[in-house]
Amino acid sequence: MISSEKICEIIEKEINQIDFKSTPLELYQPIYYALESGGKRIRPTLVLLACNLFSENINDAVLPALGIEIFHNFTLLHDDIMDKADLRRNRSTVHKKWSENVAILSGDAMMIKSYDFFSNLSPDLFKKTFAIFNKTALQVCEGQQFDMNFESIENVSQTDYLKMIELKTAVLLGTSLKIGATIGGADAQQADLLYDFGKNLGISFQLHDDYLDSFGNQETFGKKIGGDITANKKTFLYIKALELADNNVKKNLIELYSTSNINNENKIKVVLEVFNNLDIKNITLSEINKYHNLANKSLQMLDIDKSKLSVILSFVETLKNRIN
Amino acid sequence: MISSEKICEIIEKEINQIDFKSTPLELYQPIYYALESGGKRIRPTLVLLACNLFSENINDAVLPALGIEIFHNFTLLHDDIMDKADLRRNRSTVHKKWSENVAILSGDAMMIKSYDFFSNLSPDLFKKTFAIFNKTALQVCEGQQFDMNFESIENVSQTDYLKMIELKTAVLLGTSLKIGATIGGADAQQADLLYDFGKNLGISFQLHDDYLDSFGNQETFGKKIGGDITANKKTFLYIKALELADNNVKKNLIELYSTSNINNENKIKVVLEVFNNLDIKNITLSEINKYHNLANKSLQMLDIDKSKLSVILSFVETLKNRIN
Repeated sequence: MISSEKICEIIEKEINQIDFKSTPLELYQPIYYALESGGKRIRPTLVLLACNLFSENINDAVLPALGIEIFHNFTLLHDDIMDKADLRRNRSTVHKKWSENVAILSGDAMMIKSYDFFSNLSPDLFKKTFAIFNKTALQVCEGQQFDMNFESIENVSQTDYLKMIELKTAVLLGTSLKIGATIGGADAQQADLLYDFGKNLGISFQLHDDYLDSFGNQETFGKKIGGDITANKKTFLYIKALELADNNVKKNLIELYSTSNINNENKIKVVLEVFNNLDIKNITLSEINKYHNLANKSLQMLDIDKSKLSVILSFVETLKNRIN
Repeated sequence: MISSEKICEIIEKEINQIDFKSTPLELYQPIYYALESGGKRIRPTLVLLACNLFSENINDAVLPALGIEIFHNFTLLHDDIMDKADLRRNRSTVHKKWSENVAILSGDAMMIKSYDFFSNLSPDLFKKTFAIFNKTALQVCEGQQFDMNFESIENVSQTDYLKMIELKTAVLLGTSLKIGATIGGADAQQADLLYDFGKNLGISFQLHDDYLDSFGNQETFGKKIGGDITANKKTFLYIKALELADNNVKKNLIELYSTSNINNENKIKVVLEVFNNLDIKNITLSEINKYHNLANKSLQMLDIDKSKLSVILSFVETLKNRIN
């Protein structure tokens, strides 16, 4: 098995060598800018790790892995316009650094370009992996739309929330593994097990992200505790609290999430108190565990030498706090 | 040969039957809205006409033809955001009727979805036509970026302008024909001749559009004469006039295109006078003719029974005034 460090190295080197056209500058510079800004390269790493489970030669999966990374960065580029985000990975977002028009159009070009990275595959494999990829690409759009819709819906159900994070985040992790496995020669059943592993892992990661924002350790979390609360973000914690609270507390919570008449520190303190009273911490941990176990169950069902799983499992450990 | 009227009927019927998912509503309703708003369905018609030149059975080309129509409508949707256009085909644009965010995201979904319409093809044909399509898709983005860039460039050269309209408009017409021909069984040489035909025809159409705005017959043109002039649009006519004018006239023209201190009627009158003094009418007509002849030359080089061309040629005649 190739180590995940070695795989990350391959990906970083390949990304640096991508040669987009140079004109028009305004179209291609933002693409370089978005791709060079790093991130953990989780998705392409998953593609190559999954491929390596079934084949010693991962060469054919390298370009498709980059395609998925480019697609992911396209979604961030357009999401940042929609969310009016000024910063991404500590740098100006593309629509802030250039303009919204540039961000829309270079995002489009990125998406189109991402498909080209599958063209090294044989026609059969191209058609097969393309179908997997494109179905997921549409689901990611659906997830983003649900997420935006939730901003103006008072009562988002737990089911709807889980569906949203599944579409917006989790399916692309599953698909990265499934495509890698397929290129490596896995049959449909094995590829689907890896898809389920990635999808459930993605859901548990996103829930963990929600959890850490309220109950994390400020030092290891790397962000200020309570950011989601001050941003009125309808996380799993908030949705669960609304579901469990009595009418008075529920009314308070809704008011807290729609007013700016309270300072942030107080707001965080009051909301955390509500969360604690309702045992949201343990409820969330148990939900995280549920999806974590589902993920592991799929992995254990794989018909391969289990010792091969150690590389994927240790890579997953390093990711626990960050999936974006 | 199947008549172009029959082909338009097939396309309209198929478009009405497309069954996108229904949720989230905000993602899919704008797609239905954009597609039902009509237009001449030029690109899918060209796909099927070209296919029919090489095969009596055009069934396999129907879905890819819809894919290209959906892609084209995606570009309009995003272009309308970038151009801040309120109306498209006499109805509110998507970003006006819903919001910019909805228009960005449902545009993305349209683009992703358009690729799915190639999936009825065999793996070999899927890979082959996909490569043609995707190269063009990227060029269309490049053309739109050049067009936006030109707004802030004082001296756009004739060469740059022709390249821009080639990328933004003409290549997709060429590609529609090339993909149709390829699905119909044409070899690469024949398919490329049809591509060149469509590309040069597209350039001549766009130049004709520029021409009609100044020298058209108001009744048959359907729009007010001089719209491009009041919008300060750098058309072929304006670019050519700047190139040929002496320094004084050139300075005047540049000033006219950057001020709002003159009423539109006067502005149109003065600019048309400049165009007339510089013989821009005949220069443009001769350029239109040049591309028209290039297009016809490619068509005549096709290795098919020439009587088959009458359907395409008469369809092209009906289009002379409108390509958008």
